[in-house]
Amino acid sequence: MYRTNTCGELRISDVGKKVTLAGWVQRTRKMGGMTFVDLRDRYGITQLVFNEATDKELCDQANKLGREYCIQAKGLVQERQSKNAKMETGDIEIIVDELNILSPSLTPPFTIEDHTDGGDELRMKYRYLDLRRSVVRRNLELRHRMTILIRNFLDNQKFIEVETPVLIGSTPEGARDFVVPSRMNPGQFYALPQSPQTLKQLLMVAGFDRYFQIAKCFRDEDLRADRQPEFTQVDCEMSFVDQDDVINLFEEMCRMLFKEIRGVDLPKPLQQMTWHEAMRRFGSDKPDLRFGMEFVELMDEFKGKGEFSVFNEANYIGGICAPGCADYSRKQLNELTDFVKRPQVGAQGLVYIKYNADGTIKSSVDKFYSQEVLQAVLKKMNAKPGDLALILSGSNANKTRVQLCSLRLLMGDRLGLRDKNVFKCLWIIDFPLFEWSDEEQRLMATHHPFTMPNPDDIPLLDAHPEQVRAKAYDFVCNGIEVGGGSLRIHDTKLQEKMFEVLGFTPERAEAQFGFLMNAFKYGAPPHAGLAFGLDRFVSILAGLDSIRDCIAFPKNNNGRDVMLDAPSALEPKQLEELKIKIDKE
Amino acid sequence: MYRTNTCGELRISDVGKKVTLAGWVQRTRKMGGMTFVDLRDRYGITQLVFNEATDKELCDQANKLGREYCIQAKGLVQERQSKNAKMETGDIEIIVDELNILSPSLTPPFTIEDHTDGGDELRMKYRYLDLRRSVVRRNLELRHRMTILIRNFLDNQKFIEVETPVLIGSTPEGARDFVVPSRMNPGQFYALPQSPQTLKQLLMVAGFDRYFQIAKCFRDEDLRADRQPEFTQVDCEMSFVDQDDVINLFEEMCRMLFKEIRGVDLPKPLQQMTWHEAMRRFGSDKPDLRFGMEFVELMDEFKGKGEFSVFNEANYIGGICAPGCADYSRKQLNELTDFVKRPQVGAQGLVYIKYNADGTIKSSVDKFYSQEVLQAVLKKMNAKPGDLALILSGSNANKTRVQLCSLRLLMGDRLGLRDKNVFKCLWIIDFPLFEWSDEEQRLMATHHPFTMPNPDDIPLLDAHPEQVRAKAYDFVCNGIEVGGGSLRIHDTKLQEKMFEVLGFTPERAEAQFGFLMNAFKYGAPPHAGLAFGLDRFVSILAGLDSIRDCIAFPKNNNGRDVMLDAPSALEPKQLEELKIKIDKE
Repeated sequence: MYRTNTCGELRISDVGKKVTLAGWVQRTRKMGGMTFVDLRDRYGITQLVFNEATDKELCDQANKLGREYCIQAKGLVQERQSKNAKMETGDIEIIVDELNILSPSLTPPFTIEDHTDGGDELRMKYRYLDLRRSVVRRNLELRHRMTILIRNFLDNQKFIEVETPVLIGSTPEGARDFVVPSRMNPGQFYALPQSPQTLKQLLMVAGFDRYFQIAKCFRDEDLRADRQPEFTQVDCEMSFVDQDDVINLFEEMCRMLFKEIRGVDLPKPLQQMTWHEAMRRFGSDKPDLRFGMEFVELMDEFKGKGEFSVFNEANYIGGICAPGCADYSRKQLNELTDFVKRPQVGAQGLVYIKYNADGTIKSSVDKFYSQEVLQAVLKKMNAKPGDLALILSGSNANKTRVQLCSLRLLMGDRLGLRDKNVFKCLWIIDFPLFEWSDEEQRLMATHHPFTMPNPDDIPLLDAHPEQVRAKAYDFVCNGIEVGGGSLRIHDTKLQEKMFEVLGFTPERAEAQFGFLMNAFKYGAPPHAGLAFGLDRFVSILAGLDSIRDCIAFPKNNNGRDVMLDAPSALEPKQLEELKIKIDKE
Repeated sequence: MYRTNTCGELRISDVGKKVTLAGWVQRTRKMGGMTFVDLRDRYGITQLVFNEATDKELCDQANKLGREYCIQAKGLVQERQSKNAKMETGDIEIIVDELNILSPSLTPPFTIEDHTDGGDELRMKYRYLDLRRSVVRRNLELRHRMTILIRNFLDNQKFIEVETPVLIGSTPEGARDFVVPSRMNPGQFYALPQSPQTLKQLLMVAGFDRYFQIAKCFRDEDLRADRQPEFTQVDCEMSFVDQDDVINLFEEMCRMLFKEIRGVDLPKPLQQMTWHEAMRRFGSDKPDLRFGMEFVELMDEFKGKGEFSVFNEANYIGGICAPGCADYSRKQLNELTDFVKRPQVGAQGLVYIKYNADGTIKSSVDKFYSQEVLQAVLKKMNAKPGDLALILSGSNANKTRVQLCSLRLLMGDRLGLRDKNVFKCLWIIDFPLFEWSDEEQRLMATHHPFTMPNPDDIPLLDAHPEQVRAKAYDFVCNGIEVGGGSLRIHDTKLQEKMFEVLGFTPERAEAQFGFLMNAFKYGAPPHAGLAFGLDRFVSILAGLDSIRDCIAFPKNNNGRDVMLDAPSALEPKQLEELKIKIDKE
């Protein structure tokens, strides 16, 4: 037997026991003829003691142990003289009488401590050492605990977890698919699922009533920070339900998770906000409600009230009021201007109004507007002396709002208003069914082509599709979209209409989604669902900056696993068998 | 609200309640001015009643309902006159006063009944209808229940479920990989995991101590009956354990599953049998112990005792005694001979000895052997009057035993000795570490290259590798390998030695498994693990003939999903982006 106990479980009540422990050498120190070794495993750290006076040979052995050696130690539990209240095992230590090196270790390329000296790339290359750090391991333990809680919650609600296939067909609509050449069907390819969307709808047609799956999904998109080519969804679908049924049930699930994991009671019910309201007040379909700084529209206040042509020509003028920032220096204000002009944000410029503590007003548009106009603006914005008004304008209202949103979040960060231990959740509803794609020069489905239009808006489908609201809902927490879903179309005719509005020929709709539309001809039930991004959900509850920190073996921004050195070239025989060639041009 | 109750929950105590149900029309029948509709959902069937006398219009509507229409019905629960004790809701019926068709249905291509008239291919094409059949759905419900039980068991045992990546590197050793071209790294490919083997070992190096994952695995092999290109493993790994620790823990898990799912108490402890014993007694490393008919070796009895050159030249002669089969006709015996001569079995011929009920003996080798010799054989085989001895011989003992195993299983089937409701489980241990591959003309790892040799046999690695036993174990039930695993090598030197015996150059070992061997240099703990085939485990506990019946959307023998029509050709743009070409030669 390699051990009688773990390194996290011995207590004062175990004093006098003969025990065997196994684990890794966290550190070794010599002190007055004694050698102390901190032995670490997943469960904790226990102090081993070697006494030069009583067993010099054993003590010499201990002195030679390097960091991260994997060892086994046998000995007697005794009460510690200088107890360590910070450690759960801090009341005891082990007087070792036998030491076995199970596996020596080279010196690790970085320290295995909560605050390591290893950079990102190095930690990923040696991820198996990085994962020894308890800060990293705890994220994965939390992830495990969340999936257990989610599964048991959904099981109690009569959901069945069904595994849907990973090798499916390619659907060029939406994001890019990862594809898999089929050796048995040369020239043909499987695709990896971007989500089990159509399959879970087929399970509803099949009468499964309540389905879920914690499922791997795949998207071959250019990777931005916090995107991984493979990610995990808590994917759910229900039959015979309306929007409120879905929202209520999954709100309950989220409430349970926040309570169990963080001890936080979410309000009951959660706030619901329409997409239009969220855009108007926060310039985002995933507003961060941990702080105010809501948008104030300033068209009436500015338009025609001065000689500033930028504002006079704008279709939208709006601002936020940053409390206590009137003393921002020229340099700080320039930084903000540079920020909003970055291509990722895309604004043309930034207007500020300082409401100084002494009641005076100073603005970048002083020369265009009278003090009265600026005072009226500050009043509309509810500004107090000491505040700073930051104002953007533009020809497209929503695009300008999105720019202003970036600025709001930046100011939130600067003012320390985005506390990771505060959780503000809400539902966003009434999304537009379609959105215009500049790239494709056509309407695209905001969610996906199976989303049910709001029944009240169906008459608008032909003439004003852009005005049609979707029966769709997103679960948003702290400015992050954690989950989202919709009621689905279960009527073949309406589904065909959707494809028509999306510019599909009937042939293309048939080729790509014929199996689903055919299934709807056999008594499809009304159904709805949603999916949570597990990686995001874990990182929010763990208070992480990046989803990578809750993934065991993540890929870098080039889609590479630097530890495995994947992807890599194949052997020629593999390509021959698959009947494909690399096209080097 | 679409329903107040499901179709499975109303009881006599609900009489008088106003309810709303939703579901599918199972069948409709008219009887004396009344129309009865069986309404079905996942939870059961409830009888709806329409009365021509009280509401002719509604009754007419009901008469027009087709099979599998999805409907909603509102009405009053009343006690049934002719109760149906076979149905849980058989005491009540619903007097309907409102009927809504949610979704009409075409006539299904096969009947949605336990015994359907649909063939395999048709059922797969319309899998969403096939899944409406409760016999199919119940298998998936069982699968869900098993995964919940497994996860909670392992969670209680401090295992952490860790998701390992699906996009990894290709390792040409072992079965063929499915590969995924990388658009961001042109000319390079990911591979889908055949199992998370190396990744779970890295998690042990990372100190995770106890890992599990219910993981999708992928093998691009030619499909035989009951093989799927993607399948699911319950994959586990533990640190600081020996073989018995692993066996004991997972035996407990299996005991729990058999008890919870089937109410069966497995013996404690389960039998353990060495690989050599299993081969000698049953000709299989996964013996079916539901019945006897053990092999009896007959070398001493036959060799040199007669003029039959086949036996005189054989290196192995063995037989089984089929009880009560002495009256087999010539035709039946010819069938058995044809069976063993099939290429899948591969024997040259079959020798029989009939021990007739009257005590006389009749054999296909009468002319070569005296009655005394045949009598001695029957005695050795413990045959009784009425029994039939079936005997095979060959030059390679184990190959002949495998042939005899096929015959034994056939006779077990014929005699009804392989009852699906009887479960005989055991562990097979002491596998050979290597096996000879005729195809590759070299030694291959029986399990995989990371399996620990039996320490007693390490000195044999150079001179007699074929004699080295592995620290490996399989969990076998009813002749099916349900799970298997091994102790792993955690020493770089020993791992390098293994690769050497397997014929890897150091360069190739480094290229393919360098990341693992490098990891072992940083204090790798002793570790061991195993994996259960979930599809097989479910099908055994569900009493199924094929794993397909417990998979929601299985593929056919050509690796095709006939419902999705996958795999399929890609659009030229997709191939261009991936920089690959179809090689039509």
